[in-house]
Amino acid sequence: MPSYRAPVEDVTFLLNDVLGIRRYDNLPGFSDASDDVIEALLNEGGKLAGNVFAPANLAGDKEGCTRNDDGSVTTPAAFKKAYAAHIEGGWNGLSVPEEYGGQGLPHVLNTAISEFASGANLALAMYPGLTQGAIAALLVHGSEEQKQAYIPKMVEGSWTGTMNLTEPHCGTDLGLLKTKAVANGDGSYSLSGTKIFISAGEHDLSENIIHLVIARIEGAPAGTKGISLFVVPKFLVNEDGSVGARNGVSCGSIEHKMGIHGNSTCVMYYDGAKGWLVGAENKGLAAMFVMMNEARLAVGVQGLGQSEVAYQNAVAYAKDRLQGRALTGTKEPGKVADPIIVHADVRRTLMGIRAFNEAARALALWTALQSDIAHRSQDAKERQAADDLLGLLTPVVKGVLTDKGFANAVEAQQMFGGHGYIEEWGMSQFVRDARIAMIYEGANGVQAMDLIGRKLPKDGGRAMMGFLGEVQTFVKDHGEDEQLKALTGPLQAALDDLQGATMWLMQNAMAKPDNAGAGATDYMHLLGLVALGYMWGRIAKAAIAAKAEGGDAERMDAKLVTGRFFAERMLPETALRLARIKAGSDTTMALAAEAF
Amino acid sequence: MPSYRAPVEDVTFLLNDVLGIRRYDNLPGFSDASDDVIEALLNEGGKLAGNVFAPANLAGDKEGCTRNDDGSVTTPAAFKKAYAAHIEGGWNGLSVPEEYGGQGLPHVLNTAISEFASGANLALAMYPGLTQGAIAALLVHGSEEQKQAYIPKMVEGSWTGTMNLTEPHCGTDLGLLKTKAVANGDGSYSLSGTKIFISAGEHDLSENIIHLVIARIEGAPAGTKGISLFVVPKFLVNEDGSVGARNGVSCGSIEHKMGIHGNSTCVMYYDGAKGWLVGAENKGLAAMFVMMNEARLAVGVQGLGQSEVAYQNAVAYAKDRLQGRALTGTKEPGKVADPIIVHADVRRTLMGIRAFNEAARALALWTALQSDIAHRSQDAKERQAADDLLGLLTPVVKGVLTDKGFANAVEAQQMFGGHGYIEEWGMSQFVRDARIAMIYEGANGVQAMDLIGRKLPKDGGRAMMGFLGEVQTFVKDHGEDEQLKALTGPLQAALDDLQGATMWLMQNAMAKPDNAGAGATDYMHLLGLVALGYMWGRIAKAAIAAKAEGGDAERMDAKLVTGRFFAERMLPETALRLARIKAGSDTTMALAAEAF
Repeated sequence: MPSYRAPVEDVTFLLNDVLGIRRYDNLPGFSDASDDVIEALLNEGGKLAGNVFAPANLAGDKEGCTRNDDGSVTTPAAFKKAYAAHIEGGWNGLSVPEEYGGQGLPHVLNTAISEFASGANLALAMYPGLTQGAIAALLVHGSEEQKQAYIPKMVEGSWTGTMNLTEPHCGTDLGLLKTKAVANGDGSYSLSGTKIFISAGEHDLSENIIHLVIARIEGAPAGTKGISLFVVPKFLVNEDGSVGARNGVSCGSIEHKMGIHGNSTCVMYYDGAKGWLVGAENKGLAAMFVMMNEARLAVGVQGLGQSEVAYQNAVAYAKDRLQGRALTGTKEPGKVADPIIVHADVRRTLMGIRAFNEAARALALWTALQSDIAHRSQDAKERQAADDLLGLLTPVVKGVLTDKGFANAVEAQQMFGGHGYIEEWGMSQFVRDARIAMIYEGANGVQAMDLIGRKLPKDGGRAMMGFLGEVQTFVKDHGEDEQLKALTGPLQAALDDLQGATMWLMQNAMAKPDNAGAGATDYMHLLGLVALGYMWGRIAKAAIAAKAEGGDAERMDAKLVTGRFFAERMLPETALRLARIKAGSDTTMALAAEAF
Repeated sequence: MPSYRAPVEDVTFLLNDVLGIRRYDNLPGFSDASDDVIEALLNEGGKLAGNVFAPANLAGDKEGCTRNDDGSVTTPAAFKKAYAAHIEGGWNGLSVPEEYGGQGLPHVLNTAISEFASGANLALAMYPGLTQGAIAALLVHGSEEQKQAYIPKMVEGSWTGTMNLTEPHCGTDLGLLKTKAVANGDGSYSLSGTKIFISAGEHDLSENIIHLVIARIEGAPAGTKGISLFVVPKFLVNEDGSVGARNGVSCGSIEHKMGIHGNSTCVMYYDGAKGWLVGAENKGLAAMFVMMNEARLAVGVQGLGQSEVAYQNAVAYAKDRLQGRALTGTKEPGKVADPIIVHADVRRTLMGIRAFNEAARALALWTALQSDIAHRSQDAKERQAADDLLGLLTPVVKGVLTDKGFANAVEAQQMFGGHGYIEEWGMSQFVRDARIAMIYEGANGVQAMDLIGRKLPKDGGRAMMGFLGEVQTFVKDHGEDEQLKALTGPLQAALDDLQGATMWLMQNAMAKPDNAGAGATDYMHLLGLVALGYMWGRIAKAAIAAKAEGGDAERMDAKLVTGRFFAERMLPETALRLARIKAGSDTTMALAAEAF
């Protein structure tokens, strides 16, 4: 059976040595997250993931969810105990303000813990994950009454949350939304319509489910300007806060999916369900985006989590499986064959995943830290810079970490040969589960378009200029450092490619927007490569410093080697991405639709 | 429900215009394959695939195979009728010599038909596919008596074949084989042992199953030098050719796999099963390789087949799904939104798959044609050149067409957004089914090692020099052709990269074999890119000629655009592959196994 060990040591190193979390002790909540608190949190979160979530993963996949005739949904038996342990630990409220029952700790810690949970058991981690998204939306846009009514229960975990956007004919293009809301005259609305792909829409893990639903109020403008956000509880909430009558929302069916079988993906029927407006009328999209942006970061981290767990199990197999002899001569003469980790092609695969995972973890935490700074700093300039980075990097974290996370799960599965294709080994599940992360919360092509069409031109390109400047400064400051040259040289070349691509787009995409569309995905990955390369630069710098200060030399040397592997073999992909972008859209768009 | 339309027109164009099949009418069987015969075969094979195999695909995945308590295995209900239609059409014997009931037609036609079958329904196509592999091994290594006893029935399809190599502890490293064979004194042997991952090992589609099994004769040398090949029928065959007593071979269990659910993947128990030696004692590996090489080409074609069917369904969805508006302005003002095929990022995806598929089809057919020439030509030099190419390209066709075939199925699935993740749409099945092709018949890393370790250095690199020379000649001959320049320029650059990589390996892999291992997969893909680019060169040349002769200008222009897309966006990947190879193995191998 596959296993999972949370990368606690690596996260600790990233928070302390690479990101310098102590530099932010002036921000609310950070000084509460003392070194001891962080250590305890990571260790406990790691244990929960490794000892409780992970053992329920394969069973959850096999058993899946069942919709019963009465419309209720039964989740896998193994999930109940694990979810109970999760809420007992109070994990939902880690970064929620204390006034709503949370601990008010930095979001960056939450991100670390969510990697552990989603690496160990993605289908299970989605239930609290969606709850946290719902909390985030209510925190920003809900009324005080709504916050008090819903958030503490969701922090407790006795209630869970969902987000209801998609309809059968309406995915990315939310302007096509049909679900209707009719004012009841008492401040509430009656919602009617069908929502699909609703994760955790109906299940037996919590006493109540708080649906956040976008709908169109009767008479609202067409398109995205007429969308409002509503909170629609499965059970109405009595004045005293207790659970009341059943609302007019039900699960019509559950989907048969490629993976995340343990998560109930529901078709939800709203049949005059009672709901209350969250935020202003017709401003639902902006409110939903709070939830979406938070969710997009979290989904990127899911991609990393699957990449990490697949890697760990591939490593264990590669050390254990005896097959063939090393090209450089027998390594284990006492055994019938050498373990396959001696083979260079196996090593190449493992090093490639590892070199991605460590930098991707740094990138996810760095991005989450921007969220903390953007929301908690007293300094307007600092807030703006952080918000710029957060906006720019969110689609990159979502798109690149899930594309590569999935590809890495496939590569890790490949290490098992035929055994990788057999469900009992668990590698197939990692691949099937990782696949969803490329799709939900905005398919990765949509992330690329968001990056190139919104985030890049916003404020005259200020966010991108800030990022390019930061990386350039790093390279300049450390370009003469002999120990870092193996990284800074290739990073400069990659940065030049990114600058070249950005310039080319500025010159060629305004007049011909398809040039942007045809290059969007390549641009997202190009930016991702530079960001990961920059993370490797910072990791290497911190590793060298840690060694000098007497840190674990073996572990730090391994990081330096892995960073060089990234620089030699992975960063040069930027040139290919640039070539593709510069090819423009002529051949891409030349054929008539009928010619396909 | 997904559908499949066999690319009959494209195959016809490739056979006639690109590969010039009529130039080989001097080879046995080719003149029988007149233009009319080819047309009829492709049309009939296409109809069988599209109308019979494809409709059984989703049902086969859902129903899967069941092992019953008596050890029998029930295949999906929908497969029976489809298999009956297959054998009624006589498809198993297409390229089998007439003396054994076949039609003696060129193998290249068989390859075209097998793309149709495996594109339409991979799990079903595997049953006849394995039968054809067994026929091939018996044709080359079987005694005349064995050929007469088994081949006609397998051509009929009333008996099927299997290959039994893998054991729990023994995959790629066949030297670890434990299954024993003890001589009975009457010319037969008793076989005992366990084989795993045996596709079509037990099922209810045929009256008898002819297992080809590798085992170690008592007292044989250890390692691969002591392996012999046996034929072990499920039911012994009476003197009159009828089916007799049950043999001591049975299915212990069937595997729960990620995909190809309709194919029964069995654990086979050999418990004193009666078998007969095929070929010479202890020469089983060579005999098995006949089957393996044939199978490797066929598996490459499976990768292409899944890429094609996934592409076709993605195109249909992209034309149908309305979502958003084109960046260049509304295209369908009468509809609520434009079909997503207007979006450049969707186009990029579809063009990328298409540009691969057409060249991959050319490469597979060209390689199969080498097999025909190598086996049928009267000219020793011609035979040698064809055999060189066949050997060199077999691991490339297997490795590259399945790696890219899977990646393309994933990309096609992505076009569907959330719907792609739902099993009912069928896209998940294409991904799950395509995944196996990267693994079986030698995982793709093993293909890369076969290429770099065996095929490349063989005969002083003669095969590779022949290939490089052929591509260079094409570029030289057409480099001044204005219509072809968009292809020949990038092809020359790619060829230079391949030559550079080959040179680097010659200089750096002898002294340090890990440099070969660390670069093997990149080298395989680099060679694949050049081979596909060369195919595009030949396709473009043929398309220009066809246009000049009054052929379908629209279809030919589409090919020219698609070829340019390949040259602009896909061929430049060779530079990245070269950079990775030249990075060598230092960072790849630097860490101790314990550091992972």
